[in-house]
Amino acid sequence: MPTATAREAIERLSRVVPDFPTPGITFRDLTPVFADGAALHAVTDALVAPFAGGFDVIAGVEARGFVLAASAAYATGHGVVMIRKPGKLPRAVLTEDYDLEYGSTTLEVHPDELERGARVLLIDDVLATGGTLAASCSLIERSGWVVAGISVVLELSELAGTTRLPGRRVHSLVTL
Amino acid sequence: MPTATAREAIERLSRVVPDFPTPGITFRDLTPVFADGAALHAVTDALVAPFAGGFDVIAGVEARGFVLAASAAYATGHGVVMIRKPGKLPRAVLTEDYDLEYGSTTLEVHPDELERGARVLLIDDVLATGGTLAASCSLIERSGWVVAGISVVLELSELAGTTRLPGRRVHSLVTL
Repeated sequence: MPTATAREAIERLSRVVPDFPTPGITFRDLTPVFADGAALHAVTDALVAPFAGGFDVIAGVEARGFVLAASAAYATGHGVVMIRKPGKLPRAVLTEDYDLEYGSTTLEVHPDELERGARVLLIDDVLATGGTLAASCSLIERSGWVVAGISVVLELSELAGTTRLPGRRVHSLVTL
Repeated sequence: MPTATAREAIERLSRVVPDFPTPGITFRDLTPVFADGAALHAVTDALVAPFAGGFDVIAGVEARGFVLAASAAYATGHGVVMIRKPGKLPRAVLTEDYDLEYGSTTLEVHPDELERGARVLLIDDVLATGGTLAASCSLIERSGWVVAGISVVLELSELAGTTRLPGRRVHSLVTL
């Protein structure tokens, strides 16, 4: 049961940090999960397993999502598309502005990075309000690609992020 | 020859973007290398091969370095330590300020992320002035860890970055 191994590692290694990045926000720190080779391996395998054979490339959201997306990319033999904060991608971009749990922000993608119709598995660390992942799905589809699914380590169910992802197949390793 | 395959992929897929992020800077865009599964695999394998058996964990520098470090982590069964921009890590950090090719910045690490003496392979996309990698080495050593080596995709030799990394074992896939 790789998913059970991944869940055990997440629960054992992740840390709760109150009032980060702003007062009132409870942050789930996954850096100790990433730093543990066996845990990173198990989490990576569990993120991609439900979507095996159903995607061509993995998208990661800056910056923690890059760790999981790239690990998953190597694991599956696929490439990584970077969904980045504004001003970081050097060529022509598509842009999405959106609200998040603490403030608002913008994400960008290079729409020429993949062929049209490419099936993209979107990976991130945490599903909170769903704003980041909804904006990422919009960028993927506006680029002419297909959202094959969304896979996250932690889902914070009280924030009901899946309501902002209607019709999407969302896989969460741990739901809090 | 995995390194030859990696070099060919880098030369074929990377793009030169003039005047990014500021006028006068020539940016080497590796995002098309990351987006190609075979290229990412070959580059990852070539980055870690010279250090096989000589490291316990991989450090990546925010944010492009996270892609390469995490891919290399999965490939070798190790974990990833994130060297981050200020304010991003949620627990107690060590901090290094330094100058870079265009401006100045700060990097941070969680010094409790690994055991003392852990051998860290430091991976990044580009070795330019060496400031980012020198600051990262300082953070690794101040945390009580050992720099096992430095591996980068591109080295911009005219900037002489290796002079800021005396005594370090530096491996570059492509030197320009």
